[in-house]
Amino acid sequence: MFKVKVIIKRRPSILDPQGKAVEKGAAHLGLTNIKNTRIGRFIEFTVDSADRKAAEKEVNEYCSKLLSNPIMEDYEFSLEEIK
Amino acid sequence: MFKVKVIIKRRPSILDPQGKAVEKGAAHLGLTNIKNTRIGRFIEFTVDSADRKAAEKEVNEYCSKLLSNPIMEDYEFSLEEIK
Repeated sequence: MFKVKVIIKRRPSILDPQGKAVEKGAAHLGLTNIKNTRIGRFIEFTVDSADRKAAEKEVNEYCSKLLSNPIMEDYEFSLEEIK
Repeated sequence: MFKVKVIIKRRPSILDPQGKAVEKGAAHLGLTNIKNTRIGRFIEFTVDSADRKAAEKEVNEYCSKLLSNPIMEDYEFSLEEIK
């Protein structure tokens, strides 16, 4: 079994209006040094498979078809074997 | 200046209906080995400060007041100095 952690980010060329909005809130709190906020997703799950290659294939399919939007987002993931 | 990466997760005791929903989609695609999906956030930003302690203070305030919901989420972050 593998524990998987996925990070999904918008491509650098794609604007992030949600990040901009939260950053405005920060400025109102006096946190004026905070800049370039970009909001993505962090997803954890397990893959019940003994074979790392097969698990990676499932993870890639899960990420590209369900978790991320391949038009504007990139994903990266790490697998850690657990007993 | 520091580059900051924040991970925000729901507490383990809090249900994650969005994760459950995406996982049902995975089962429809035949990805039946994927379990325990939990969806959180990954946030990046910069702090324009020369002092690590001061930067950490700003990051804690940003995370606890704007980025996370302290009732049901936990956050962790890392700072990396950049030139």
